[in-house]
Amino acid sequence: MTSQPQTPLRDLSPDQLAAFTAGVTQEYDDLRARGLSLDLTRGKPSVEQLDLSDDLLRLPTSTRDRAGVDVRNYGGLEGLAQLRELFAELLWVEPEQVVCGGNSSLTMMHQVITDLLLFGGPGSPRPWKDEPVVKFVCPVPGYDRHFSMLAELGIEMLPVPLHHDGPDVEAVRALVADDPAVKGLWVVPTYANPSGSVCSHEVAAELMAMPAAAPDFRIMWDNAYAFHHLTEDEAKSADALSLAAAAGHPDRPIVFASTSKITWAGAGVAVLAASAANKAWYLQHLGFASIGPDKVNHLRHVEFFGTADGLRDHMRKHRAIIAPKFAAVDDALTAGLDGLGVAEWTRPAGGYFVNLDVLDGTATRVVELAKEVGIALTAAGASFPHGRDPRDRNIRLAPTFPSLPEVEAAMAGVATCVALAAAEALAQA
Amino acid sequence: MTSQPQTPLRDLSPDQLAAFTAGVTQEYDDLRARGLSLDLTRGKPSVEQLDLSDDLLRLPTSTRDRAGVDVRNYGGLEGLAQLRELFAELLWVEPEQVVCGGNSSLTMMHQVITDLLLFGGPGSPRPWKDEPVVKFVCPVPGYDRHFSMLAELGIEMLPVPLHHDGPDVEAVRALVADDPAVKGLWVVPTYANPSGSVCSHEVAAELMAMPAAAPDFRIMWDNAYAFHHLTEDEAKSADALSLAAAAGHPDRPIVFASTSKITWAGAGVAVLAASAANKAWYLQHLGFASIGPDKVNHLRHVEFFGTADGLRDHMRKHRAIIAPKFAAVDDALTAGLDGLGVAEWTRPAGGYFVNLDVLDGTATRVVELAKEVGIALTAAGASFPHGRDPRDRNIRLAPTFPSLPEVEAAMAGVATCVALAAAEALAQA
Repeated sequence: MTSQPQTPLRDLSPDQLAAFTAGVTQEYDDLRARGLSLDLTRGKPSVEQLDLSDDLLRLPTSTRDRAGVDVRNYGGLEGLAQLRELFAELLWVEPEQVVCGGNSSLTMMHQVITDLLLFGGPGSPRPWKDEPVVKFVCPVPGYDRHFSMLAELGIEMLPVPLHHDGPDVEAVRALVADDPAVKGLWVVPTYANPSGSVCSHEVAAELMAMPAAAPDFRIMWDNAYAFHHLTEDEAKSADALSLAAAAGHPDRPIVFASTSKITWAGAGVAVLAASAANKAWYLQHLGFASIGPDKVNHLRHVEFFGTADGLRDHMRKHRAIIAPKFAAVDDALTAGLDGLGVAEWTRPAGGYFVNLDVLDGTATRVVELAKEVGIALTAAGASFPHGRDPRDRNIRLAPTFPSLPEVEAAMAGVATCVALAAAEALAQA
Repeated sequence: MTSQPQTPLRDLSPDQLAAFTAGVTQEYDDLRARGLSLDLTRGKPSVEQLDLSDDLLRLPTSTRDRAGVDVRNYGGLEGLAQLRELFAELLWVEPEQVVCGGNSSLTMMHQVITDLLLFGGPGSPRPWKDEPVVKFVCPVPGYDRHFSMLAELGIEMLPVPLHHDGPDVEAVRALVADDPAVKGLWVVPTYANPSGSVCSHEVAAELMAMPAAAPDFRIMWDNAYAFHHLTEDEAKSADALSLAAAAGHPDRPIVFASTSKITWAGAGVAVLAASAANKAWYLQHLGFASIGPDKVNHLRHVEFFGTADGLRDHMRKHRAIIAPKFAAVDDALTAGLDGLGVAEWTRPAGGYFVNLDVLDGTATRVVELAKEVGIALTAAGASFPHGRDPRDRNIRLAPTFPSLPEVEAAMAGVATCVALAAAEALAQA
């Protein structure tokens, strides 16, 4: 571990910096000699987490829902009523607002945007494909798959800062107020990927109420980590649908969630919640592409959770497994970098990621250095539209999938790489 | 049961026709008095059929595939290798050509056409949305959901006759050869919905080889009933991909299938098979909307079937349940209508439907008459684009879901309604 100079690297004399660099280079060479093969790229549950849900292998015990509907047959486009009620309670919405779908909320988001492109939605003057240009406001850092989806669909991205309490409201307001081409905004309200920020009630209220030039302005409210607490202080997501309805914009938000990181990542259930108009519009188009979701898997999940509290209890078992991994990330970064003034990182209260900001202009170098010693990190810039971080400082760390010893080893190495890249950069400055 | 005059109704004198009408009207009034509530609308498996797959409730027994991949986690966009191999064998294609997806081949078809609209595909000069008009050739009678999907997406439909051996080749050729706006053709090659026709090797070869003005002409080869035999004479589907490749049009066909009517109708697995270029194109776009399919359900199905022969054996159990229902349809129609010259119907060798053609101009009336006595039939014209049967003669019968006694009762009633509607029409002629 780096012996701490307790002095910011910027304040070191050239000789002191050279001595520091020599020390950290030695540490780096030692790392290389260890022949590591570690991976912090993947926001995936670990095997131990997946094992928590293995009772699913023997469920459901019934093939009929509460109303006697045979879940093995066709039909039921909006999903099993019992599962919709469960998620309505968990998301503080009404069962009538909920659609339960397949195994991916990403798929539901893609459907929504594709339908808006092809047909327009409630309030749209025309299909979005017939607009000269369509733009989305994208808080950064954000979820790479949100941004790549927009790029695929030809939608322009307008980055705004994401703060600890949500998107920068004034920056969003300035973009949305006058330009009717600005049709959308991504929000990951709870424990955002990767920053861990939680959108406050106040910020959410402003986002739902602010004037928008586009009559069909949509907020894609991706509540992927709504229940994914890492501490006893469990954040409560702002109630997007009620706030929007109260502000006179009921069709503005569309809420998404899933059990991908609750039960099984490939075999869970996804959820959409929206106004009556948005839900009817979504189901209308879905009905041309599907006769209904996998209701057997819906019933499997209903039986597995039992109640909303059953799901909440289940999430505490996840927490017990992964919270130590997040603590290990913080411990390693603190031990290796505290006081050097070359890095800041989050200590998230939930979610799946740690956001590491290194010295400006060195993120790409840190990822390279780590790769050379067998530590795979997510590509620098991945959390920005088109993968371009203008300050080249942001790195997303995903500690859930590796074992705790692997996280400890990998993060000690990452700290060394961050320090080395910073020392290199400062020596050239 | 109608006492058979053994004389075509058209050949009866006015007095004879009046006597016949009086008799069949009496039968119809008797029907009404019985207070039936029967439903022949739904091409759904019966409960007894669904029960055949209840071992799925205790599968999979493993959570790893052959290669050790944890099926409970993210990834594997093209689907589980073992399931792809199983369907490759069943569909006479290569595993490399196969994608296994979610619970619905209809969803995969919708994705393909949506992606062609938004992006174009291999060979497309531009996205289909940027064409002045896009047209599909639609063999009739056909699957209502194929046609409603095109209507939703703003694609014009050009009906051509469907014969016992597949689409009318010369009619297709005439539409496809010179008009670059004709971008697609639907084919249900095996036991087509509703006619039961089986596309012959010769017809398939001609469809794959014929010149097309559109460089990205696609044949949507929906092999929904590939394994759904009703007799020992099991039809073998033409090998669309090989025929197309041999003809120099490898990207023309895209093959679809599913287990919706093999295991469970809402909880099965869907399959796409295509050329390397088409598959890569499909997965490229799918990757923006999904991290992967439900591999647990893939493994569940792999374990359930075991082998391709396991699936074939399973289908024989379905046949044992539903073949008597199809026989009951034929028996009732023969008993009630044989010799009257007012109806023709199919005796399909597979699939889920009987195609009933009644006297021109009377199909809508037959459906009305049936409804009044408690027998629900699919809306007349449902098997035609926009629900418009130009001859108003086609009725689709779906006998799998009701019990055998229900099929017998319903079909005797249908025969009465057909005869009565014909007698009414002939009396006015």
